[in-house]
Amino acid sequence: MRLSAFALSTTKETPADAEIVSHQLMLRAGMIRKLGAGLYTWSPLGMRVLRRVEAIVREEMDATGALEVLMPAIQPAELWRESGRWDLMGDLMLRMHDRGEREYCFGPTHEEVITDFVKRDVSSYKQLPVNYYQIQTKFRDEIRPRFGLMRAREFIMKDAYSFHMDEADLDREYHVMRAAYTAILDRIGLDYRVVAADSGAIGGAKSEEFHVLAQTGEDELAVSEDGRYAANTEAATTHRPEGERAAATGELKKVATPGVATIAQLCQTLEVPAEKTAKAIVVMGEDARPILLVLRGDHTLNEIKAENLDGVATPLTFAEESVIREHFGAGPGSLGPVNLNIPVIADFALANAGDLVVGANYDGAHFVNFNWGRDSIEPQFADLRNVVAGDTSPDGSPLQLLRGIEVGHVFQLGDKYSKALELTVLDENGKAVTPQMGCYGFGVSRIVAAAIEQCHDDSGICWPTAIAPFELAIIPIKADKSAAVREACETLYAECRAAGIDVAFDDRGLRPGPMFADAELIGIPHRIVVSDRGLEAGTLEYKGRRDSESQNIEHSMDAIKQALGRTADE
Amino acid sequence: MRLSAFALSTTKETPADAEIVSHQLMLRAGMIRKLGAGLYTWSPLGMRVLRRVEAIVREEMDATGALEVLMPAIQPAELWRESGRWDLMGDLMLRMHDRGEREYCFGPTHEEVITDFVKRDVSSYKQLPVNYYQIQTKFRDEIRPRFGLMRAREFIMKDAYSFHMDEADLDREYHVMRAAYTAILDRIGLDYRVVAADSGAIGGAKSEEFHVLAQTGEDELAVSEDGRYAANTEAATTHRPEGERAAATGELKKVATPGVATIAQLCQTLEVPAEKTAKAIVVMGEDARPILLVLRGDHTLNEIKAENLDGVATPLTFAEESVIREHFGAGPGSLGPVNLNIPVIADFALANAGDLVVGANYDGAHFVNFNWGRDSIEPQFADLRNVVAGDTSPDGSPLQLLRGIEVGHVFQLGDKYSKALELTVLDENGKAVTPQMGCYGFGVSRIVAAAIEQCHDDSGICWPTAIAPFELAIIPIKADKSAAVREACETLYAECRAAGIDVAFDDRGLRPGPMFADAELIGIPHRIVVSDRGLEAGTLEYKGRRDSESQNIEHSMDAIKQALGRTADE
Repeated sequence: MRLSAFALSTTKETPADAEIVSHQLMLRAGMIRKLGAGLYTWSPLGMRVLRRVEAIVREEMDATGALEVLMPAIQPAELWRESGRWDLMGDLMLRMHDRGEREYCFGPTHEEVITDFVKRDVSSYKQLPVNYYQIQTKFRDEIRPRFGLMRAREFIMKDAYSFHMDEADLDREYHVMRAAYTAILDRIGLDYRVVAADSGAIGGAKSEEFHVLAQTGEDELAVSEDGRYAANTEAATTHRPEGERAAATGELKKVATPGVATIAQLCQTLEVPAEKTAKAIVVMGEDARPILLVLRGDHTLNEIKAENLDGVATPLTFAEESVIREHFGAGPGSLGPVNLNIPVIADFALANAGDLVVGANYDGAHFVNFNWGRDSIEPQFADLRNVVAGDTSPDGSPLQLLRGIEVGHVFQLGDKYSKALELTVLDENGKAVTPQMGCYGFGVSRIVAAAIEQCHDDSGICWPTAIAPFELAIIPIKADKSAAVREACETLYAECRAAGIDVAFDDRGLRPGPMFADAELIGIPHRIVVSDRGLEAGTLEYKGRRDSESQNIEHSMDAIKQALGRTADE
Repeated sequence: MRLSAFALSTTKETPADAEIVSHQLMLRAGMIRKLGAGLYTWSPLGMRVLRRVEAIVREEMDATGALEVLMPAIQPAELWRESGRWDLMGDLMLRMHDRGEREYCFGPTHEEVITDFVKRDVSSYKQLPVNYYQIQTKFRDEIRPRFGLMRAREFIMKDAYSFHMDEADLDREYHVMRAAYTAILDRIGLDYRVVAADSGAIGGAKSEEFHVLAQTGEDELAVSEDGRYAANTEAATTHRPEGERAAATGELKKVATPGVATIAQLCQTLEVPAEKTAKAIVVMGEDARPILLVLRGDHTLNEIKAENLDGVATPLTFAEESVIREHFGAGPGSLGPVNLNIPVIADFALANAGDLVVGANYDGAHFVNFNWGRDSIEPQFADLRNVVAGDTSPDGSPLQLLRGIEVGHVFQLGDKYSKALELTVLDENGKAVTPQMGCYGFGVSRIVAAAIEQCHDDSGICWPTAIAPFELAIIPIKADKSAAVREACETLYAECRAAGIDVAFDDRGLRPGPMFADAELIGIPHRIVVSDRGLEAGTLEYKGRRDSESQNIEHSMDAIKQALGRTADE
């Protein structure tokens, strides 16, 4: 491509309303332009990257035997009412009426539509398993669209839906999809982690997320040191530590802590580290009586885990202050497990702890040297909290916390949608069976932004070659004054194209500075500079996008191919 | 592709609600499935055809240097208000509110968005010309969606928009796009015509439509015998015939025609052919006085032409009966050009006619032997009517009328949108200039249906090879009983794939009848049958989709390639 005919539109200035690097660089490189809140037009430059991602995703999906379809963007409300999600989806879903006043939504996802499709087309076990996928624009009416493509309202997803006669076959396909996602991310060339995830509102049993690692990632991931265990911190589990509980070393003693409302204040007042303190949170039980949850002072409650505990009310409900005062005789800042006649559930991290500082159930007072069993009943211990760096992972090695950007999610949905929409197929014996379903989402436009978050420097984007808009930039020096430079560039441009190299020839007639800056900003992985001096010496100046220095290479296609990491035959 | 893994879903029955062949066959072949009124899911089979069309369109657009972009489907109302089309578009446009109660539409077209995009990115003449295109799902809220994809509410368009410094450059690009569309349709392999068109509501000067010929086409086309002239009948012109007016042969004579209200009744009553009669239509002039339009009895008024006449009110307004009675003294069934004091405009076709039958301006009476000049003032002659078969085209040869399906439309928009949205760029002298704009639409999903309307027979679809879902079907006979047949099929399947032939191997274990029927219904251009008898004789049974008989060919890849019209090296 000649850049003179490519409508490149870059800027030096960082746009004021772009908060994160990928948004800033996509705007500066001119990959996207804003039309309205959360709505972007992809420019020719952006499209080249998007199409490369799309092609990789399509190839890997096709390789698994999944079949491409295309479902309508606009979906009738009735289907969503059948699944029970019309009301559940709330304001995130863009709704509308047609001229006949029938209700529709701009589909944020297609479980209902594909289940309806399969219902019309599949009647026998012979037609299963089947896995349908599509690559399509979705809409989510974000309350505060921001971060460019990371939280856009319109975005492109690859979504796939599989149908199976039983759970074992669903599990098989789930692992096929998991492997396909791994292949896609390996081919794109990003550092990522597959993490255990909570299935959330979409329902179902097993699910994992694919996260591209980046310091700016929205999600926190807990990954074991040897990499065998990884989970979204929301879903990462902790367990009861091995070994014995620490022995008590002193007597339970009430101390005055006037005005202390937080663990930080408590640590400061009593000069104890936070890990020697316990904090108490009161939630309501299924029987409408309160339950005391106790965590180490420096840990945080994981509400999903708490909600899943036996006896705890769903959804998780924190006790009103009046209820707390009635049962504890004190306010929320001074609660503890001593002298209670309500259930106590303590986090595993406290199971072996002794000599703790706990609330005294007396306003402005705490106990020191609290020990389980001696100073209170022995509580139930459970996994109540979010993991922290250094926790032991289920595989035994310490967990580290990383930040990631979710770009893929695979789910075992089970029969949630097939049941709700009354999809059945006949098995070998002619008996109607409700198929098991899996769904698999991949953020096609999102991964473009995620790649930039992971791969950039002060000069701009550093694309992985597989999704770079161009592989190589050819930059002429003083082409206006040198016929030799012009001719050499034209020859190289033709030869590179003939060799299947996707080349951007900067024939815009700019000074070297702006050409170098553009090539770096838009992230072309390789560049060669053609100058009179080089031509006289028989050399080209080569620089990889991440190289600190340029180097002279022979003026030949073989040398260029070698610099690009290709063999001479490629 | 093994058909056992392809989720093919065909039916013998013609669906009750499918009125036209393409809709019937797409449903029967299982290419699409209905989700709601005018909303269809494309199945894996349909997607293969759609993707092929898309690839051809993309390649030909890229070859012209047009740059691919992707604009949001959801567009803010403000932009449409700026162009004045928010109110103009009416109920065809699907409108909605986001959670912030801002108004949006599901873009049926993108003139406003691209103009806004160019406004942000282009400021200098150096950046023009530029032509942006996208391939995208559009929505049109049809009052009565029907005919499957032919009048679907959701459909896929390739839309392109070009920007230019002057009209000459717009005209140049217009012809580049016209040539690209011709190349696309030639590659797809359909019989089509490029016809002059009326620009309609979209505005602008020059426009042409691309029509795929089919007896079921919605549009009527007037095409000259030698093909040099073609126009939508709405836009086809007529002209004043050469030669002399026929001489009068008898006296003007009033005859009673009681109860005659139509030309058909008049012809029957007076025993004259319709081409010897004239009918009169009264429209209002710009001065609010009536004007009489006179056409040959067997011709029909072209309202667009009438509206464009000097002195005729816009929009075209037919006179009320009270106005007619006041000026003519008779009702609409008995009007004529005799004894009037209002302007008379007669169609060119009547310019040389003599001895006509005309209304007498007296209820229940007509004149026979009416002759212009002798029996009335000499009227103004003009092009007032729709063309008919046999009319002389502007190039002198007779016109024939064909039916077509519009699949493409190229427009010279001029400055309509650039002016409305205040897009200017600086010219060489630093002067702000409003760019000229062209727009070019191509119906990507529509042409799939149009191809079927043109290419089918009683057994199903007969795809042109370029967009066929598969090129070749391999059909085994009694594979369950013959290891030799199974092995030969597997070998052929592997060899065909290695040779780059897109092959459908019917390994579903069906009887021959259903396999043949499916291959014909879904329109695979070539098929080979593998049987024990053939294997013994060293032959395969080959049949082209449109062949009446099958033939035995040598059991070799060379023979298959030859049957497919490829050279042995291909």
